[in-house]
Amino acid sequence: MTIKAAVFDAYGTLYDIQSVAAVTEDAFPGYGDIITQIWRVKQLEYSWLRSLMRRYEDFSVITRESLAYTIRVLGLQHDATVFERIMDKYLHLDLYPDARAALAALKDKKLAILSNGSSDMLNALAKNSGLDRVLEAVISVDSKKIFKPAPDAYTLIEARLSVTPDEVLFVSSNPWDACGAKAFGLNVAWIERVTPEAMALACVKSDVVPPLTMFKALRTQMDELGITPDHRIHALSELPNLIA
Amino acid sequence: MTIKAAVFDAYGTLYDIQSVAAVTEDAFPGYGDIITQIWRVKQLEYSWLRSLMRRYEDFSVITRESLAYTIRVLGLQHDATVFERIMDKYLHLDLYPDARAALAALKDKKLAILSNGSSDMLNALAKNSGLDRVLEAVISVDSKKIFKPAPDAYTLIEARLSVTPDEVLFVSSNPWDACGAKAFGLNVAWIERVTPEAMALACVKSDVVPPLTMFKALRTQMDELGITPDHRIHALSELPNLIA
Repeated sequence: MTIKAAVFDAYGTLYDIQSVAAVTEDAFPGYGDIITQIWRVKQLEYSWLRSLMRRYEDFSVITRESLAYTIRVLGLQHDATVFERIMDKYLHLDLYPDARAALAALKDKKLAILSNGSSDMLNALAKNSGLDRVLEAVISVDSKKIFKPAPDAYTLIEARLSVTPDEVLFVSSNPWDACGAKAFGLNVAWIERVTPEAMALACVKSDVVPPLTMFKALRTQMDELGITPDHRIHALSELPNLIA
Repeated sequence: MTIKAAVFDAYGTLYDIQSVAAVTEDAFPGYGDIITQIWRVKQLEYSWLRSLMRRYEDFSVITRESLAYTIRVLGLQHDATVFERIMDKYLHLDLYPDARAALAALKDKKLAILSNGSSDMLNALAKNSGLDRVLEAVISVDSKKIFKPAPDAYTLIEARLSVTPDEVLFVSSNPWDACGAKAFGLNVAWIERVTPEAMALACVKSDVVPPLTMFKALRTQMDELGITPDHRIHALSELPNLIA
């Protein structure tokens, strides 16, 4: 089957969510990196928990609530200005260095984002990074009122791009997302970003693994969910060869 | 409304899941504690992810898969005997010290467990700890093929105990479970166990927070899910006064 569309996860796949660390470090010196790690863990948890509880709120609400949690558990104080400055960075995340070139090389395919982000968040992100000019669609799960990896979320690709699941290559660095997309029936490329943290985790004893290493490493390893993505790549730059 | 039944979460509420650490430390010296922490994080994630993906497998499968993940990401080697010895400890978890007395003091109420555990796991746990003699029911979510905090899971209380949600006090130390039960409509007591880790997290800078402190602390703090349990207590021993 020919691949007609390449559809990308946004957070952690095209956009580097760790790029908020500069802003969080500026707001809370000494805590920048750990805030981004706890924030991400809780952002994901809340998206799954609210989906299961049937208490959906859009991703901007969840992102705010998980940031509030993070600041609270670290015992930090904040004012509204600082909070909004951090939140604003989520609309201006850095692209991964190879994102723009990979998308350009795939320009004969339909290109889109399918993300848990709200429409407002995603449209701002695409505009601020210039990806709005190369993407045919920026699809938010919001219209389904449930988050990935629920199957309903992935149905939006066919609805919006008029391609069947077997004509789609879905690309995500998030193991749970890659598994969810594969379980749904898409072709899936999982990006295993081999970070220094992932390497370190396997080499050192637990009493010397720094907490940030631990948190970061846990997001880079394929999960045990009984599902294997079709492709395992290490960078977006490998995509053009994969579906040429 | 009079409380007619007290229904308890099992893992982390009546039973101390950290009590597996002695076995994991024996199997993997230096890693005992960190294994229990990663294992628990992934066990929870997989229960939510499989529920959302509609790829339910019972909790014994999820517990095995999350242990396999943990051993893999830490770069450890294991044989089948070691793996089974660790898994077996999950059927022989220690009760929290105040569990037995609290249940005894509530003996005029219907007493039950509602847990994500499989029936086999829970029945073994209740028998091995002697709680089978004081509990009217040990209820597994397994018959619903979805895990807490999905509303369907909590419907089993009324079905099994013939009490309406407002006649139930549900007790859990897991913030997501307390929120799920409250969202469903039960009366909820959340047990905030004030651990040394939780205290430490709020007092020290990120560069000196040990990884285990971080992991443990994140499980003891109330989540930001837009829901507040009815009661916040610090030990099971507070329950009799709560519903006297």
